[in-house]
Amino acid sequence: MIELKDIQAARVRITGHIRRTPLLHSPFLDEHIGRKLFVKPECLQHTGSFKFRGASSAISHLNERGEAGDILAYSSGNHAQGIAAAARAMGRHATIIMPADAPTVKIKNTERLGAEVVLYDRTHEAREDVAAKVMEKQKLHLIKPFDNLDVIAGQGTIGFEIAEDLRAMGYDAADVLVCAGGGGLTSGIARAMHFAAPKARVRPVEPVGYDDVIRSLRSGKREETPAGPAPLWDAVATLAPGELTLPIMQEHCHEGFVVDEKETYAAMQAAFNTLRVVAEPGGAIALAAALAGKLPAGDDPIVALISGGNVDAEVFAHALTQKT
Amino acid sequence: MIELKDIQAARVRITGHIRRTPLLHSPFLDEHIGRKLFVKPECLQHTGSFKFRGASSAISHLNERGEAGDILAYSSGNHAQGIAAAARAMGRHATIIMPADAPTVKIKNTERLGAEVVLYDRTHEAREDVAAKVMEKQKLHLIKPFDNLDVIAGQGTIGFEIAEDLRAMGYDAADVLVCAGGGGLTSGIARAMHFAAPKARVRPVEPVGYDDVIRSLRSGKREETPAGPAPLWDAVATLAPGELTLPIMQEHCHEGFVVDEKETYAAMQAAFNTLRVVAEPGGAIALAAALAGKLPAGDDPIVALISGGNVDAEVFAHALTQKT
Repeated sequence: MIELKDIQAARVRITGHIRRTPLLHSPFLDEHIGRKLFVKPECLQHTGSFKFRGASSAISHLNERGEAGDILAYSSGNHAQGIAAAARAMGRHATIIMPADAPTVKIKNTERLGAEVVLYDRTHEAREDVAAKVMEKQKLHLIKPFDNLDVIAGQGTIGFEIAEDLRAMGYDAADVLVCAGGGGLTSGIARAMHFAAPKARVRPVEPVGYDDVIRSLRSGKREETPAGPAPLWDAVATLAPGELTLPIMQEHCHEGFVVDEKETYAAMQAAFNTLRVVAEPGGAIALAAALAGKLPAGDDPIVALISGGNVDAEVFAHALTQKT
Repeated sequence: MIELKDIQAARVRITGHIRRTPLLHSPFLDEHIGRKLFVKPECLQHTGSFKFRGASSAISHLNERGEAGDILAYSSGNHAQGIAAAARAMGRHATIIMPADAPTVKIKNTERLGAEVVLYDRTHEAREDVAAKVMEKQKLHLIKPFDNLDVIAGQGTIGFEIAEDLRAMGYDAADVLVCAGGGGLTSGIARAMHFAAPKARVRPVEPVGYDDVIRSLRSGKREETPAGPAPLWDAVATLAPGELTLPIMQEHCHEGFVVDEKETYAAMQAAFNTLRVVAEPGGAIALAAALAGKLPAGDDPIVALISGGNVDAEVFAHALTQKT
């Protein structure tokens, strides 16, 4: 299990590398849901998503321990860019295994950040097998996107920031909505807030059809999602929660919510219209749950995390012009 | 003339009301222009533009001086929302005169922020005349969008923030690009940076056909732009610099730049792709000048201000999908 000191140590290592994101708010959003709503825009993080935190935490920990060697990662996008940028900032070469059908902008940006990209066909190969093949040829440090304690601790630094900002405004409780893929982000924030704001209720949000975390929390064991692409929500469409992340979420998470396509578009539009930030579809689902009224009325605020903003222009333009 | 203490006093009055915006940056933008580029995203300011600063500065100064009475303003959009939100926050009623053909969303948002909106037909009436008529009936404090010393001092607080953030990174000089309409923003920043970062070069940027500030700086007198709509750049398409703002810009501004439609779209796309913030067309022109390579090579950084993000979804979707 990750302890308070692990998240604190991760924070010390990544401070000066990461951007401390603010809590944004809009009177229009408060009015819409009848509760105070704060949005944590990790789309404004370097590389456009929270993944840069976990990547920086993991690579800086290798540096701190004096472990030499290059980095390997697999990712459909945001973890790839996070690893590429963190590796470059911390003086390591990175190889990233990416599905050939990942958003073009994510593949291109990963290469422009100095990483070597190996593409694979996700309908015929498992990314773990491709990684194993690459590692046969050379010794590399594999940094998994969520089942890695340093990565989880890095994402947990978001929980510290939320807790501090809430406290500065006089709040000690809140519903904290976090989009869940493999659960690295959700478990990190839940664990950090357990220490820093124990009255906060961290709740996972998943897209309809990809609710493996919510079902796993209900059943008490790792539930899988039938494999299949989810091009709209690529950032969070994982097949199952992680082995390390699920026990943390079981200990700390409250009931979660599922959102659909229309609710996702409504959240992307609201972020655009009222906060002027870009949310990618998978990154908008926590805000979607808040705006769709999934939470009961309450006196304390809601915090919704926007996990990333790496979305192709065509997809975003389409999302903005949908009826919701 | 506005003195250092005036901008400092404005800052004291509006701190706690305004959002202190960060300087964003992206390695992709640095690479593109061959210089370090920082972006000041005032689109993340409350109400989606820097106008909230000037409005808060002016209304809080009335409060401080104990001058009772309601507020009157005229604006087609961003100043309207800034005044409405600041008046509500500071306990005053606001009446805003807006053209009947302003975007419905801007009129609606101004009303939702608690202001009373008076519509007029801009093809048959001058907004100054409509304001005079409203003021015949009741005594109101008219807060002009740029020719007001408290407004200029409020916008000047942006210059202090840029100077502080540059200094914290070890820079004492920079090219600071600011979109110019009536010059309230440009003159405020130029005056503030004259005190806080005297080696910085503040440069106005205007859309092609609306370069009245640049021409006025060259000729030494107020030059007008032939009246005519500029739907794309509505936020900065003023007819002439202000009477108060021009002398300040004459004293402190360096050579400016003019950008076209294609360069504007390229900047909106770059802000979307690399910084994940929403820039409205008029708000993107300073970044456009930087990205279009209008500045000579240099060792010190460029700072480009994004003045606002209040753009209709259809316009933004169109901008994202243009070839540039």
